[in-house]
Amino acid sequence: MDYTTPQFFHLMQYAAEAEGDVIDMVSGNPDFEPPSTLRRALQAYADFDQGRFQYPPSDGLFELRALIAKRRGVDTEQVIITNGAGEANYLAMAIALDRGVGSEAILLDPIYPYYPGKVEMLGGTKRVIATNRDGSIDIGAIEQAMSDETALVVLNTPNNPTGAVYDIDDVRHVIDLAETHDAIVLVDEIYDRFDYSGRFASAVPIDSEHRIVTSGYSKSMAITGLRVGFAIMPERYIDAARTRHMLVNVASSRPAQYAVLEALRETPDTYYAEARAQLGDRIDAFTAALDRVGAAYTEPEGSFYVLTRFDGFPGTMANTKRLIDEAGVAGMPGATFGDAFSDWLRFAVVTPRAVEAAERLGEYFG
Amino acid sequence: MDYTTPQFFHLMQYAAEAEGDVIDMVSGNPDFEPPSTLRRALQAYADFDQGRFQYPPSDGLFELRALIAKRRGVDTEQVIITNGAGEANYLAMAIALDRGVGSEAILLDPIYPYYPGKVEMLGGTKRVIATNRDGSIDIGAIEQAMSDETALVVLNTPNNPTGAVYDIDDVRHVIDLAETHDAIVLVDEIYDRFDYSGRFASAVPIDSEHRIVTSGYSKSMAITGLRVGFAIMPERYIDAARTRHMLVNVASSRPAQYAVLEALRETPDTYYAEARAQLGDRIDAFTAALDRVGAAYTEPEGSFYVLTRFDGFPGTMANTKRLIDEAGVAGMPGATFGDAFSDWLRFAVVTPRAVEAAERLGEYFG
Repeated sequence: MDYTTPQFFHLMQYAAEAEGDVIDMVSGNPDFEPPSTLRRALQAYADFDQGRFQYPPSDGLFELRALIAKRRGVDTEQVIITNGAGEANYLAMAIALDRGVGSEAILLDPIYPYYPGKVEMLGGTKRVIATNRDGSIDIGAIEQAMSDETALVVLNTPNNPTGAVYDIDDVRHVIDLAETHDAIVLVDEIYDRFDYSGRFASAVPIDSEHRIVTSGYSKSMAITGLRVGFAIMPERYIDAARTRHMLVNVASSRPAQYAVLEALRETPDTYYAEARAQLGDRIDAFTAALDRVGAAYTEPEGSFYVLTRFDGFPGTMANTKRLIDEAGVAGMPGATFGDAFSDWLRFAVVTPRAVEAAERLGEYFG
Repeated sequence: MDYTTPQFFHLMQYAAEAEGDVIDMVSGNPDFEPPSTLRRALQAYADFDQGRFQYPPSDGLFELRALIAKRRGVDTEQVIITNGAGEANYLAMAIALDRGVGSEAILLDPIYPYYPGKVEMLGGTKRVIATNRDGSIDIGAIEQAMSDETALVVLNTPNNPTGAVYDIDDVRHVIDLAETHDAIVLVDEIYDRFDYSGRFASAVPIDSEHRIVTSGYSKSMAITGLRVGFAIMPERYIDAARTRHMLVNVASSRPAQYAVLEALRETPDTYYAEARAQLGDRIDAFTAALDRVGAAYTEPEGSFYVLTRFDGFPGTMANTKRLIDEAGVAGMPGATFGDAFSDWLRFAVVTPRAVEAAERLGEYFG
């Protein structure tokens, strides 16, 4: 299996073992506080009856599925709770590739590295299509690439690593193409709460038998370690998803599901707005500092990553390590995400030290 | 995908919706208390720094892996933490079937129904071999069935549903055969703490590149809903397991891992001994009551299930439902577990009402 995700871990370890002080902008771990209700719910769980330490329903706590369904305007039957959005994506891809209608998965470059890894693990073949330079969907290129061999198209909006927020008409267009070719469009919306453009629209309301939407609470509630995600899918596929979920995981961890349910019920919108505003401010400060040194960068409309290019300093693994050792800033090599930005570096701004990092980069390249 | 596990859920629901009072002996959910340390650890977690709400290492908390490794006498590198023993079994089977040396999985009848489901999902073909009538391994039959097509042999000891505790020499013999045919023996020891015979021995100390052992804390700590299990495997396969685990689940839920770690450190042996003694007493009382009505039954050496046969009352789904409606006792049809005990019923004794259930059965069949 050839996939590059362990590079994250490799670099985090390299940064941790470096001699000087290093600002970690490698990982996408949120650095803000989980909702207070979530902490209280976890605490309350400790005293629950022993019965609540036993198997939850395999497809998730009913109240959690029902609440997600209500807020998203779908039937509870269409919602399955998973071990994070990572498992939701895995289930969706497996369903798309298991139907016996083609084995090709269209992935957009830049690519979040787990996607090709999952496709290969599931026996699919990947076909990589570049996005437009601004990170938006190149509809023409996708249209040209699609055939009856196409089983799956994966979209991620807001996007990691480009920060692009896809135009919902473009998403609809891709789903239309999928209907023609009997493919499934997986729309991964894990960064749905991090939209600075005001343009993000979920694909859930697009009524189609050919779209699956995944998301979760790892990023929005700052709980990547709790592993609570979900998929919303057409009813025709939900049994296949349940079966695979049961055979792989039996169920997802119950205290985590309960804590998310309570947090979802009681956390005010201001919680999400504050996290988004803080990250937006940091992105602005980080890119302003990059401006001062004349570095090229992507201006994220969503998510919390900035791609940066320094003249004469391509984003190779060797240069990424050099930056850790010599500038005290750890990012990710652009090549991890495919060809489109292989000369660039990706920085996650989920650290209060983002501005300090930009200043260090300024000094280093200044 | 053809597998019968949803019958568990179907019957539990049928029993819950029945008119009269029904004693649930369907599910294998322990009914005793989780360790007090586990509850305290979960409570403490609620106040931890936000960093501990973020991703744990993908292969599990290092301290948990190290503690398991130390107690089992293996290297920490050989241990991977999974989302319950269910995922550990899935990973082990995937590894066995992905090596390109055969696609056949030998499963022993009676069969725990998740096993054939997983094998089929992973593209393997199952070959079902009957155990001896007392539930022990029929070495001759396995030897005859094995060929270069054999990729995997699955053993479960103590066994669900027969309660057999395999002779460790038999297990070693199967592993020897696997070495000859380049197959992998998966030994699922999830009921390792429920041995009434004193004969159970783990396969972990058997030093072979051809054995993988799985277990977890769902049964021993009465926490089926927390989802903490593990696999111990030869180092040559650990990278493949880590990769698949990461691509499917990213990681397992962190508070659950922490709570198990603390419970594992501090729970005295008396905790496990008391649970085992209580279940042993219940099994004795249940089978004594079955004796009084002249029903045939298996005498479990381990786990917590009793297979029972009532003359002229084969364990079909229809009869299982009749027993729910007319006797107020819910079991599982033997046919769920293959052909060997298709006339029998399986009863889980993890209910304080096991004796009352036996009395009801006595009245009904008396």
